Amino acid sequence: MEMTPKAKTSKLPSLSLRIDLDEGRIGPGKIQLLETIHSCGSIAAAGRALNMSFKHAWDLVNDLNRICGCAVIEPEKGGKDGGGSALTPFGLSLINRYRSIERSVSQAAREELLGLRADIG
Amino acid sequence: MEMTPKAKTSKLPSLSLRIDLDEGRIGPGKIQLLETIHSCGSIAAAGRALNMSFKHAWDLVNDLNRICGCAVIEPEKGGKDGGGSALTPFGLSLINRYRSIERSVSQAAREELLGLRADIG
Repeated sequence: MEMTPKAKTSKLPSLSLRIDLDEGRIGPGKIQLLETIHSCGSIAAAGRALNMSFKHAWDLVNDLNRICGCAVIEPEKGGKDGGGSALTPFGLSLINRYRSIERSVSQAAREELLGLRADIG
Repeated sequence: MEMTPKAKTSKLPSLSLRIDLDEGRIGPGKIQLLETIHSCGSIAAAGRALNMSFKHAWDLVNDLNRICGCAVIEPEKGGKDGGGSALTPFGLSLINRYRSIERSVSQAAREELLGLRADIG
């Protein structure tokens, strides 16, 4: 594909995706929260990492459970470190599906996004 | 692809798209407004059709002009009917690009959305 010099140097517009289900929406914010819980090991630590109150993080997790009709997080485990949270297999699969959709979509939309970038200079 | 009887009868999750540009975001609401201005012939009529105040509709159009750095609407024309608004060629092209991206994306994401529907039953 031919690109003008200008198009070569300016950034390609990006896409944000939201999955619309009967019970609600799943977008980049909720997916990022799940990923952060997975890497940090608890809802509280993920909330801190994302500058989000524990209550807000917990509400978003509950939203996801309700929207999907299945748990995204295993029940908190006890122990000397005060417990933590792990994702369920469904929670992990949800992240993978969302990121996989994102990759396919970037590819599928690439020509139109190049065209849009050329239109707006 | 094999589908369970349940998957055959329940609705496939849909996707909403937002285009992220340096200056702001273009999502389904702004595109629907442009389409309605195109079909109704004025910002005021489009606002009424979408249950939106004239000011809000006008602000969204101005947002689009600013985000894209080019006008999406021709200047209002005078005349005995009090004028009206037509989309610029860029405004029409923006609608077409957005809807074309939507179609490619639905296709590209179909397998994962079928998988998600199966996961959540």
